[in-house]
Amino acid sequence: MKKLLFAYLLLIGLFVLYVYQYQSDNTTNSQWSDYELRGTIDENYVMVTFQSGIDYWKRALKGFEDAAEALNVSVEYRGATQYDVDEQITVLEQVIAKKPAGIAVSAMHPVALNDVINKAIDADIPIVTFDADAPDSNAHSFLGTDNFQAGVVAAHKMAELIHERGEIGIVTHPKQLNHLERTRGFRETLASEYPHMEVVSLTDGRGDQMTSKEVVDEMIRDYPDLKGVFASEANGGVGVGQSVLEQQKKDEIHIISFDTDKGTLDMVKEGVISATLAQGTWKMGYWSLQHLFHLQHGLASKMEAGTSLPRFVDTGVTIVTKENVDDFYPNE
Amino acid sequence: MKKLLFAYLLLIGLFVLYVYQYQSDNTTNSQWSDYELRGTIDENYVMVTFQSGIDYWKRALKGFEDAAEALNVSVEYRGATQYDVDEQITVLEQVIAKKPAGIAVSAMHPVALNDVINKAIDADIPIVTFDADAPDSNAHSFLGTDNFQAGVVAAHKMAELIHERGEIGIVTHPKQLNHLERTRGFRETLASEYPHMEVVSLTDGRGDQMTSKEVVDEMIRDYPDLKGVFASEANGGVGVGQSVLEQQKKDEIHIISFDTDKGTLDMVKEGVISATLAQGTWKMGYWSLQHLFHLQHGLASKMEAGTSLPRFVDTGVTIVTKENVDDFYPNE
Repeated sequence: MKKLLFAYLLLIGLFVLYVYQYQSDNTTNSQWSDYELRGTIDENYVMVTFQSGIDYWKRALKGFEDAAEALNVSVEYRGATQYDVDEQITVLEQVIAKKPAGIAVSAMHPVALNDVINKAIDADIPIVTFDADAPDSNAHSFLGTDNFQAGVVAAHKMAELIHERGEIGIVTHPKQLNHLERTRGFRETLASEYPHMEVVSLTDGRGDQMTSKEVVDEMIRDYPDLKGVFASEANGGVGVGQSVLEQQKKDEIHIISFDTDKGTLDMVKEGVISATLAQGTWKMGYWSLQHLFHLQHGLASKMEAGTSLPRFVDTGVTIVTKENVDDFYPNE
Repeated sequence: MKKLLFAYLLLIGLFVLYVYQYQSDNTTNSQWSDYELRGTIDENYVMVTFQSGIDYWKRALKGFEDAAEALNVSVEYRGATQYDVDEQITVLEQVIAKKPAGIAVSAMHPVALNDVINKAIDADIPIVTFDADAPDSNAHSFLGTDNFQAGVVAAHKMAELIHERGEIGIVTHPKQLNHLERTRGFRETLASEYPHMEVVSLTDGRGDQMTSKEVVDEMIRDYPDLKGVFASEANGGVGVGQSVLEQQKKDEIHIISFDTDKGTLDMVKEGVISATLAQGTWKMGYWSLQHLFHLQHGLASKMEAGTSLPRFVDTGVTIVTKENVDDFYPNE
């Protein structure tokens, strides 16, 4: 009889424990709001690029993946293997056919992808552009570098390096809008804020290492007092570095370049390139997924009439010099 | 004996149930990553403005509150009651003393608040600026309207309204940077894209309704063929509306104004003001809190060296016309 009593008591005890646990579970759930920032693993978001093999995208994809972990959703990476706009259109069409939860695309052409981007919108698939925009498409937002601002940052850094005084050359790629903007930001800042710095030469390096080296060879001959060169993209920067090395002007001419491919980082480490501007590629990926998640979950319409998304997110640039260059080599 | 056996069986059954539930709880937990987007209710984020009573802040605060619900944290609203920079500094100091989880501040002066903003940074309190920036402070990011872009939007809308042809006047407030930028975006867009539209008059309305009315009275006398007026802020816009009404030019002159206070919305409803530009104030609040949360939880350093925050988020503008004006009246 005592044993039976004991068993009953234990039973009641466990029942109480069970009820208690059930209730505390409910408390936890009720703390969750209607628009919690947590998805499900079967929600699949896709990042689409071009030249899918290059290192440049790795940090963007890492940001996309990190956001997926924070939001508890899945991601996938697809890209045109070549620098080929038709291939990117085909890849996008394949991705759209699978009806993913959202697409982040870096548009290799500012106009050619408009139709396929709008096709995603028509199929109710959230889509944003990152790194390279398609401004006339219906993509919900763009996350990337404000290139004019990046040029402003480069100008201030150059002023610091040459103590606000001296002749400057620019090697750019005048056919691409992002390079024009970088150059404009650089020149306008020098013109308005640094009266003792003068842009004496503005040349076309065609985004090519060899061409850039040649135009700077000539620039150094024409302007023996040159104190600095701003290269608006990475191949040009390496070409400028080779020219300056060959002409033994390493200690006289400060170079500021763009992006963080291995060739550029090595030259920063060796002190040939004084500084390079790293784009916020991780942030592009991370905040792209945040935007897509907000669209997919209709958080916009739940919370506020219209869209809850900023039109443009400037992911900014970071100045990379000898001091912090090691942080920018890929870990693999 | 049978009863005892039954009791034991029940006991074992309940125990199994208990263990099962315990495990399923653990499974739920393990789905959460290290950097989940979920805080605790005792995390208190503070929004600080100036002229705290005005309607303008309501949507920003709503965005801040909505993000707090999504992220499971608490928020508080504080503001200088007056348009007084010393009062705002005092309020900020009081807020900093309480060591909140983060601060979003609309800086009523672009420089005067730098010290107190940096004081928050020094005390390890995350701080961002929204709506009005303090660009030389150490605030982590700025979330607000790109005023140049807003001027571009206004120019395209004006072109549509007057069929890309005619004389235009501008009433602005040339002492404030945001108004200069709006005017610059408007003028540069007309100059570069609309050869048959001409800005014939650019006047200072001093941010005042009466002054703006008077300058436009004169403008209409001087330019009887005037087809449109762009007012870069709301008081000016209402003044322009009064002038146009009084001179019975309502059907001849299109007005584009800025912001969505009641006076402006009423004039849009009556067809006196053709369009006004609503700033993304809800988004400013919502994404400010997202940024502060990322800083407070050190998501930056967990995920990526450096900061995970965009430098600048352009919350954009929405064109408000007769068609959608009702969505912009406050609900209360």
